[in-house]
Amino acid sequence: MAELDHDRARRRGYAEAVFCEGKSPAQLRAIATALRERHADGAPAGARTLFTRADEERAAAILDVLPDARHEPEARLLAWPPEPPEPTGGLVVVACAGTSDLPVAREAELTARYLGRRTELVVDVGIAGLHRILARVDTLRRAAAIVVVAGMDGALPGVVAGLVSAPVVAVPTSVGYGASFQGMAALLTMLNSCAPGVGVVNIDNGYGGGHLAAQIAAPRPE
Amino acid sequence: MAELDHDRARRRGYAEAVFCEGKSPAQLRAIATALRERHADGAPAGARTLFTRADEERAAAILDVLPDARHEPEARLLAWPPEPPEPTGGLVVVACAGTSDLPVAREAELTARYLGRRTELVVDVGIAGLHRILARVDTLRRAAAIVVVAGMDGALPGVVAGLVSAPVVAVPTSVGYGASFQGMAALLTMLNSCAPGVGVVNIDNGYGGGHLAAQIAAPRPE
Amino acid sequence: MAELDHDRARRRGYAEAVFCEGKSPAQLRAIATALRERHADGAPAGARTLFTRADEERAAAILDVLPDARHEPEARLLAWPPEPPEPTGGLVVVACAGTSDLPVAREAELTARYLGRRTELVVDVGIAGLHRILARVDTLRRAAAIVVVAGMDGALPGVVAGLVSAPVVAVPTSVGYGASFQGMAALLTMLNSCAPGVGVVNIDNGYGGGHLAAQIAAPRPE
Amino acid sequence: MAELDHDRARRRGYAEAVFCEGKSPAQLRAIATALRERHADGAPAGARTLFTRADEERAAAILDVLPDARHEPEARLLAWPPEPPEPTGGLVVVACAGTSDLPVAREAELTARYLGRRTELVVDVGIAGLHRILARVDTLRRAAAIVVVAGMDGALPGVVAGLVSAPVVAVPTSVGYGASFQGMAALLTMLNSCAPGVGVVNIDNGYGGGHLAAQIAAPRPE
Amino acid sequence: MAELDHDRARRRGYAEAVFCEGKSPAQLRAIATALRERHADGAPAGARTLFTRADEERAAAILDVLPDARHEPEARLLAWPPEPPEPTGGLVVVACAGTSDLPVAREAELTARYLGRRTELVVDVGIAGLHRILARVDTLRRAAAIVVVAGMDGALPGVVAGLVSAPVVAVPTSVGYGASFQGMAALLTMLNSCAPGVGVVNIDNGYGGGHLAAQIAAPRPE
Amino acid sequence: MAELDHDRARRRGYAEAVFCEGKSPAQLRAIATALRERHADGAPAGARTLFTRADEERAAAILDVLPDARHEPEARLLAWPPEPPEPTGGLVVVACAGTSDLPVAREAELTARYLGRRTELVVDVGIAGLHRILARVDTLRRAAAIVVVAGMDGALPGVVAGLVSAPVVAVPTSVGYGASFQGMAALLTMLNSCAPGVGVVNIDNGYGGGHLAAQIAAPRPE
Amino acid sequence: MAELDHDRARRRGYAEAVFCEGKSPAQLRAIATALRERHADGAPAGARTLFTRADEERAAAILDVLPDARHEPEARLLAWPPEPPEPTGGLVVVACAGTSDLPVAREAELTARYLGRRTELVVDVGIAGLHRILARVDTLRRAAAIVVVAGMDGALPGVVAGLVSAPVVAVPTSVGYGASFQGMAALLTMLNSCAPGVGVVNIDNGYGGGHLAAQIAAPRPE
Amino acid sequence: MAELDHDRARRRGYAEAVFCEGKSPAQLRAIATALRERHADGAPAGARTLFTRADEERAAAILDVLPDARHEPEARLLAWPPEPPEPTGGLVVVACAGTSDLPVAREAELTARYLGRRTELVVDVGIAGLHRILARVDTLRRAAAIVVVAGMDGALPGVVAGLVSAPVVAVPTSVGYGASFQGMAALLTMLNSCAPGVGVVNIDNGYGGGHLAAQIAAPRPE
Repeated sequence: MAELDHDRARRRGYAEAVFCEGKSPAQLRAIATALRERHADGAPAGARTLFTRADEERAAAILDVLPDARHEPEARLLAWPPEPPEPTGGLVVVACAGTSDLPVAREAELTARYLGRRTELVVDVGIAGLHRILARVDTLRRAAAIVVVAGMDGALPGVVAGLVSAPVVAVPTSVGYGASFQGMAALLTMLNSCAPGVGVVNIDNGYGGGHLAAQIAAPRPE
Repeated sequence: MAELDHDRARRRGYAEAVFCEGKSPAQLRAIATALRERHADGAPAGARTLFTRADEERAAAILDVLPDARHEPEARLLAWPPEPPEPTGGLVVVACAGTSDLPVAREAELTARYLGRRTELVVDVGIAGLHRILARVDTLRRAAAIVVVAGMDGALPGVVAGLVSAPVVAVPTSVGYGASFQGMAALLTMLNSCAPGVGVVNIDNGYGGGHLAAQIAAPRPE
Repeated sequence: MAELDHDRARRRGYAEAVFCEGKSPAQLRAIATALRERHADGAPAGARTLFTRADEERAAAILDVLPDARHEPEARLLAWPPEPPEPTGGLVVVACAGTSDLPVAREAELTARYLGRRTELVVDVGIAGLHRILARVDTLRRAAAIVVVAGMDGALPGVVAGLVSAPVVAVPTSVGYGASFQGMAALLTMLNSCAPGVGVVNIDNGYGGGHLAAQIAAPRPE
Repeated sequence: MAELDHDRARRRGYAEAVFCEGKSPAQLRAIATALRERHADGAPAGARTLFTRADEERAAAILDVLPDARHEPEARLLAWPPEPPEPTGGLVVVACAGTSDLPVAREAELTARYLGRRTELVVDVGIAGLHRILARVDTLRRAAAIVVVAGMDGALPGVVAGLVSAPVVAVPTSVGYGASFQGMAALLTMLNSCAPGVGVVNIDNGYGGGHLAAQIAAPRPE
Repeated sequence: MAELDHDRARRRGYAEAVFCEGKSPAQLRAIATALRERHADGAPAGARTLFTRADEERAAAILDVLPDARHEPEARLLAWPPEPPEPTGGLVVVACAGTSDLPVAREAELTARYLGRRTELVVDVGIAGLHRILARVDTLRRAAAIVVVAGMDGALPGVVAGLVSAPVVAVPTSVGYGASFQGMAALLTMLNSCAPGVGVVNIDNGYGGGHLAAQIAAPRPE
Repeated sequence: MAELDHDRARRRGYAEAVFCEGKSPAQLRAIATALRERHADGAPAGARTLFTRADEERAAAILDVLPDARHEPEARLLAWPPEPPEPTGGLVVVACAGTSDLPVAREAELTARYLGRRTELVVDVGIAGLHRILARVDTLRRAAAIVVVAGMDGALPGVVAGLVSAPVVAVPTSVGYGASFQGMAALLTMLNSCAPGVGVVNIDNGYGGGHLAAQIAAPRPE
Repeated sequence: MAELDHDRARRRGYAEAVFCEGKSPAQLRAIATALRERHADGAPAGARTLFTRADEERAAAILDVLPDARHEPEARLLAWPPEPPEPTGGLVVVACAGTSDLPVAREAELTARYLGRRTELVVDVGIAGLHRILARVDTLRRAAAIVVVAGMDGALPGVVAGLVSAPVVAVPTSVGYGASFQGMAALLTMLNSCAPGVGVVNIDNGYGGGHLAAQIAAPRPE
Repeated sequence: MAELDHDRARRRGYAEAVFCEGKSPAQLRAIATALRERHADGAPAGARTLFTRADEERAAAILDVLPDARHEPEARLLAWPPEPPEPTGGLVVVACAGTSDLPVAREAELTARYLGRRTELVVDVGIAGLHRILARVDTLRRAAAIVVVAGMDGALPGVVAGLVSAPVVAVPTSVGYGASFQGMAALLTMLNSCAPGVGVVNIDNGYGGGHLAAQIAAPRPE
């Protein structure tokens, strides 16, 4: 099955990811150790590993083994080796509706950066005050791909998609209460967006949103 | 129980309503006949009856008995006596996102008018092209109550509520397909609106939306 | 975009709100500090800030910075400056079905008061003993807007709407168990209310319910 | 397994039932023929058969074979032999909220009567006008069991249970639209009733509601 | 409204109930104190109070004030005065499918007993081993009302209803995992029971199930 | 990828299947023609094709091209060549709760037979009358695999699994109404079965149920 | 608001779309007439209009006015002017799992082509026979964007995303029955895809899927 | 009812099971004591007991009484007597998609082994990298029954069923987040599997999956 070429993504500079939620600190320590040993004489160019959804306890276990990893607590993300690759391709803009959506937005932004894109973050541009997003239209229009992160009513991606011609990756968050049903309301809003050009990922999936945007904004194969 | 005063609403000029869906044409003919006989020597001032959700067959049965009733086929509504009352209170603006939402929007507008309010209708102002609703902000700000009708992503009421200080009555519609789940997506969006000042009614409930708006915009009791 | 006039609401006396759930005590301390500094020489008339959904730890962080803020622990609400504005407009009555619904009802009542309305609270008038709500009909009929808060079967708003001509703002609560599905049963009941004149807000959204009622009962623009 | 005594119910006077929905007219004709032949020399006392949910076409097929069966088109029910048994036990009152709930209410009432109870029907007593149900409290209090049939908000059974000490059998109906979700909203309301003493059956299950009420009001075994 | 006679239930011997979940120990202490003071010279015959869903902390608060109350920890129930009334009416049998359903079953049984019925408890008769329930048919057939408590597949009430002619009150429990959806699967099973004669109450509502059974088995008014 | 050996199933005697629902009569005619031409000089041993979910119009189109196909209208199934293979392996028993479940049960039975198993059908053994299924225990115990088909409460598979040691394949049907939610209630019941040994397939999936049972009862590879 | 530049998308060659479902033939005729008149002296380069979800009756109404429009009945799509633009940007591959998914897949493909991309269609590559999709890996890897259309289990997009490095746009379809819940099962599968790089659009939204893919594969702005 | 033969399963070598979740350590200690006493002079051949879903605290209580029980903490399972029976019948292969699914997979494997089958475990073969499962096809094809355990998109069982002719028992897990809805997404995917031959058990039900597979792979009765 070697011809299935499962290393292709990595060779093109995409980082591997370890989803930490549901793994014990001991398991993560083992994974980190294996990683360190595999690259004992220096990680090859482009071979990066992201640890996603790592709470403080899990992050500490990883840092124990890979003390030079970069740790972004708000995004619950660690990267090793710590420097992102030299950016290529187009700009990825990550916009989020409210400050509570920020952890997911940061996870998306850092993922895109570690997959090799330039990124910009636009925060607190929810639709309850339209002037905020309208004031950022120029930034949005410079993007090759836009990640829009929103909880509660989840209306921001549809508004953004109506303002730009770049593809929008919509990330619903579980921010909200009651009839937000842990993000399902925002998810449904995004799937029903009146404006075309919106692709949706799972609730709170900042990693997935950033990954897809990085693929969209990647330098064209040839 | 006479002191419960169930005629109070009518004396204040609110029309009675007959929900036609699920009633047979024969039943509606009987109701219309009883109504005509009750007011054989002319309907008293303010005593109006609305027939809601009347399809062509049911409308014909009613018109058979009350040939001078006003029939609005798009809104599936009939009113008898046909003239709305002299308007009092504040302005009710009804805004709708798409042309498919128009029947529900018209039902809301006519209900408010027959309950005694001045009304204006604003159509095709969905958020996929924000300039459309922004161009109508002046109209929206003249309203004492705004009914916003939207299907699919249901995002319009939240946008409107962020632009005005009047109360917004949100009416989700079943317009859409797939993950709109017959209007549930729009309903959830409206309940999770980031902007305060939005009260939601049942899916496709144009009558209820217009009624609530008419109550909000009513002349103050004293 | 200055013409979008996002300060309009505040100039008319509506308080700003900070939703504390999901914000860290440190973040709230920073927000409170910024607020204090902005109004170092006294808050301008009408410029009030509400902190909603603040548990004990978050309330302590805010009080640390704004020791003169008013703290209502049951409603999980803080207000600064502590005095509500001089009331204008109509009366807002807040009715709740059971004692477990009281925190949400109090949040609604205090919100309406800080937005400038007179308020009255009617408690423990659930429909299992109809005589309780019937005994309060006079109070209900004096209101320009009524907030009805109920969990479990959520039937109270529909009963109230049938007794009055003022608009009813229905707030479902997550009080209940089993097939109450964290308030969804009450929410659906309210959306399906047989009596017209009911606008529904999100589950447990006392702030939103009080805000909408305050808007409805506001003094008419002109 | 003869000792399982599956004929016990019939010997106590309970009718057998044939659910017609989903059976073809030919199948029903065959069932009716078998029934007629089994009782060629007269049905034994107490041996009654109810055909439930029979539309016009199915009813015609049954009447073809059993021309003396009693046919109640509104309730979509046929009974053979046509006379109900002499009533015993307590009174069963069937109350329904709106006229659209009437077919289900009639099915419940006729079922209880054919199972041997006296019945009374109370119609159009929805909670949007409380005076209607309050005016019938005396009738309700004479009942040994009360069936309450309601669609939309489904709030009537809880109100009735708070007014009486007899058990209430609640039958939600699919009457409504939008967020009634084909009767699910009414079902949930009834399951969450604040007043104890409410047992719920399936949506539109008038037969089941009448059957349970007839069992509750049955003469005590000894 | 005095003629609404809300004391009627109590005069007939039905206990009052205080739902403890969601009330603080301090609130419960206050309620218990008021109760003790109201009956300072001895509780009148028939005036009993049940405290339901009381965990250890809440039970301790109540026992602090009413040390002679009867406390049944498994059923999370307290009764004061501690002795149930002299039983009247028919027998209430409470059957439960598994040992995990026992707390709810005991709550149902004790409720029925404190409302004045004789009770019997039948445990561990789930349908995975049919011989267990078949061996108890004689007991079931002596009952005037049967409460059947079951989680997971919730199939037991339908099986029991097919074996007896008494009414069955079905209480779904949240026992289970995965696709039991906290009792919703059992609830739906019971609502769809093939055998007529099953009335369903809310998930885990042992109190409601016992109350309804006690009403069904009550001595006939006259 | 030839080594993936996708013809393996067919060589072992499993029939191919064409799902007719959603295909036009013209498309089915084309498929049947291709099939006939492929086997112009006689279908090889073991090469059978089943057409499933074929209504009258679709069946006619197929019979037009393959007039010697066997058509089972109740099961909505056609087989070509018409004779099932010589049976091998163990016995497959198909049991169904009610007569409305019969079409799905027959589809399961015929599928198992065309995949090469002996089959027996047991009908109308719903749990509302337990004596019916208990009377068939001997038949059930002779089976190597049992398919149990049930709608409404879906309780039969769990009862059967408690009586035998063979694997049970549970097929929920959409038979029912109201809270059966088109078979979801039955599906959940089966997934929550208290007795181990139940594997569930999709609602109304008689083909899948029969196929799985045929695989279970297949002669062991070697 | 002219600076919002809502014509930007069209100038870049994106077609306008008219969603025909829920519009009457008369309305569509009016829209087509307005379109024809606007471009009376020839449609400007790049100004194309797509009519989506047009059944036979609606298509006839449009062709009546615009007889030279291209009509693709399977995809329920019409385009006017009929020729797609000269393709630019990368290749869009549309893959679909089963033949029943073909109409949605064709809608996606034609949309992408009318928005200016080269397209290829890969059909009948469902995961029940993995060799089919593995045989097409070379085609998939030539794409700049891949649309994957699947109903039932919806597993194909995740498999494809694991084989390529281009972004995958997943379009769930309502193909299926029972627990497919009109496409919700497929939708959830796609949102939970283990492989990153999948953006999901609404159920049956071939237009939206093709549009997003065309944006992803567009020539880079500069 | 002795002829119902409920000991049959045990005589054929199937272990009894005690579901520990929801039982207190004290209850489990009592059950273990009863077990030890029943078999004071040695457990008879084939009489094994499995304790499932035992967390550390519950496991300690059981080991206190039965110190020689085998404890598998990852699978949360204890077995007493500790040795599995001599294997008979066919091979059971348990495959799982990700390492987070491993506890459920191990529970399935150990259950099958204690019911008397040979087992093999295949881990980390999720479909995001197809080469992993394709590399294990030989192992899969040696199985008489295959248990496939998967969370998130739940797509693995359908892929496996397309590669083998043995029956597949699918066990969805609650591994995932957001729109996985605690395993419901995986459950639906498995029920909608395009490949026939998949029987599904409850979410996280490793015990049930292993039990069913052991029955399928059992030596044929005669």
